[in-house]
Amino acid sequence: MNALRFHRFGPPLEVLQHEEVEPGRLAAGDVRLRVLASPINPADLNLIEGKYGVKPELPATAGIEGCGEVIESSAPGFRPGDRCLFLGRAELWADEVAVPAAALHQLPGDLDPLQAAMLKVNPATAWLLLHALPFEPKGSWIIQNAANSAVGRCVIQLARELGIRTINLVRRTSQIPGLVMLGADHVLLDDDSAVDSVRDITGSVPPVLALNAVGGTSALRLMNALGPGGTHVTYGAMGRKPLTVPNGLLIFKDLRIRGLWLTQWIDKAPRDEVTALYDRLAGLMLEGKLSCPVDRSYPLEEFPAALKRLDDPERSGKVLFKP
Amino acid sequence: MNALRFHRFGPPLEVLQHEEVEPGRLAAGDVRLRVLASPINPADLNLIEGKYGVKPELPATAGIEGCGEVIESSAPGFRPGDRCLFLGRAELWADEVAVPAAALHQLPGDLDPLQAAMLKVNPATAWLLLHALPFEPKGSWIIQNAANSAVGRCVIQLARELGIRTINLVRRTSQIPGLVMLGADHVLLDDDSAVDSVRDITGSVPPVLALNAVGGTSALRLMNALGPGGTHVTYGAMGRKPLTVPNGLLIFKDLRIRGLWLTQWIDKAPRDEVTALYDRLAGLMLEGKLSCPVDRSYPLEEFPAALKRLDDPERSGKVLFKP
Repeated sequence: MNALRFHRFGPPLEVLQHEEVEPGRLAAGDVRLRVLASPINPADLNLIEGKYGVKPELPATAGIEGCGEVIESSAPGFRPGDRCLFLGRAELWADEVAVPAAALHQLPGDLDPLQAAMLKVNPATAWLLLHALPFEPKGSWIIQNAANSAVGRCVIQLARELGIRTINLVRRTSQIPGLVMLGADHVLLDDDSAVDSVRDITGSVPPVLALNAVGGTSALRLMNALGPGGTHVTYGAMGRKPLTVPNGLLIFKDLRIRGLWLTQWIDKAPRDEVTALYDRLAGLMLEGKLSCPVDRSYPLEEFPAALKRLDDPERSGKVLFKP
Repeated sequence: MNALRFHRFGPPLEVLQHEEVEPGRLAAGDVRLRVLASPINPADLNLIEGKYGVKPELPATAGIEGCGEVIESSAPGFRPGDRCLFLGRAELWADEVAVPAAALHQLPGDLDPLQAAMLKVNPATAWLLLHALPFEPKGSWIIQNAANSAVGRCVIQLARELGIRTINLVRRTSQIPGLVMLGADHVLLDDDSAVDSVRDITGSVPPVLALNAVGGTSALRLMNALGPGGTHVTYGAMGRKPLTVPNGLLIFKDLRIRGLWLTQWIDKAPRDEVTALYDRLAGLMLEGKLSCPVDRSYPLEEFPAALKRLDDPERSGKVLFKP
């Protein structure tokens, strides 16, 4: 079998190699799958650079998300041809992988493999972000930055489905029409005027929840736009700047600042909650109510082109490997 | 009657004046009290400087905390001679004050007036800080900075009473013995070595709660000392620096960052909870399990000396007015 491996941590273009690897033996309870598709996520790049929340043993294969088709099974309930989503830590930038069945979630067979490959991380993160409060904020305003990101676009679609109203901050005016088409209630530029604009839009019922994937001044903008007692959740750090939190926003405005890491949720949540969430999200994908934009897919051996595509200003969605 | 008033916001020594004021009329449900004692709190100074969470109408009298003795009552259940704690917003740097009975909490008559005058803010803040988690952290480690402050000292005494173990950060080694005497489990210098020392002390059961009254690097130190999923509560900002929160501490370490403002709690909590808390704290004071150090008390007209005393390095506790 073939895999994209790295023997040391570093910039992906420097350390990734397309290698032939001996397939692992299938233990009892394991399932071997042909990988159908696996996206390139920022977390993969962080993993390869050694900057992720966990460091794998080297040599390692990246690809923490994807879907596959069972080709060999020694686990009850899994048969060749079944389509599965990988939930556990997997190494999916490969053409085959053997994993314990417990790390798999079975998918409807008619789901588009490219969409299915992106189900684990971004839609589930968006869903959990929208459920970060002790109550469901139906009818309330929420605000997010990086609204044009993959998670941001899922937030917009899921919020619409859940009856939550969204104010979305983006970096370029060219990103506004697409998000309005997707169901965003308001789309604003992520600049100094945003806080006043939010106040004008929401009046006496300010946002109860802010979703932050940027950090720095953009994260602070969200804090200022939140109402008293509001919750501010960080799930990404695209701007690579820490949060600055004025003391008054904690003491007098009573903001609650926290984070969300999907991997930890999957590890800790009861299994039936995890299954219920992915069943629901797969259903929404099948109904066409939830989709993640795809830019292009590449075979494994074209990984340098795939990685370069990430920085292409023309890129219009996720880049995936389709081994 | 006499009061310390200010007609504009500014530095207390510049804007405070000792003035004779016409006493207000007593409306139905009101009680008139002779003020027995009222401390000088940082919040009073912020109020006078116009930097508090709420701005009073001018001219105003400071003194947000204190105790008094009823001298005239048109409220059922309040009789001349009753001792009371002021809970609502009051103007207590005065020799008399008339307030609605609903803003008072009745005290045992045998409580020392200087101690009783300090019951509202610091002991109650410490109590609420120790109850900031969804569970009572009995047997767990907590960590606080500014441990030698009035709230910090109450935290140590109340934690001991509640079976919570404390690690206390202070700025000077001279402050260590006093806090150990008070019941602190550990007292460390608030410097770069503190995080490693906390790890050595707590081993595999790191602190679950951090109490921050400083901000800046000291606040960050507490975040680094907390265990995964720990809660970090800001109730003061002595260092006048905002919090800096690295994204990884939110996303991967799952820290919860929030604030506490006693005034808001008193305004929002059910009245019977407020009454129960102050009854409990007054009981602990009577039993000698909770006390706040007193430096000196001054009559109102000596306010310049009282204010200057605040910055005296020899000061060993609260400065109060005893009209």
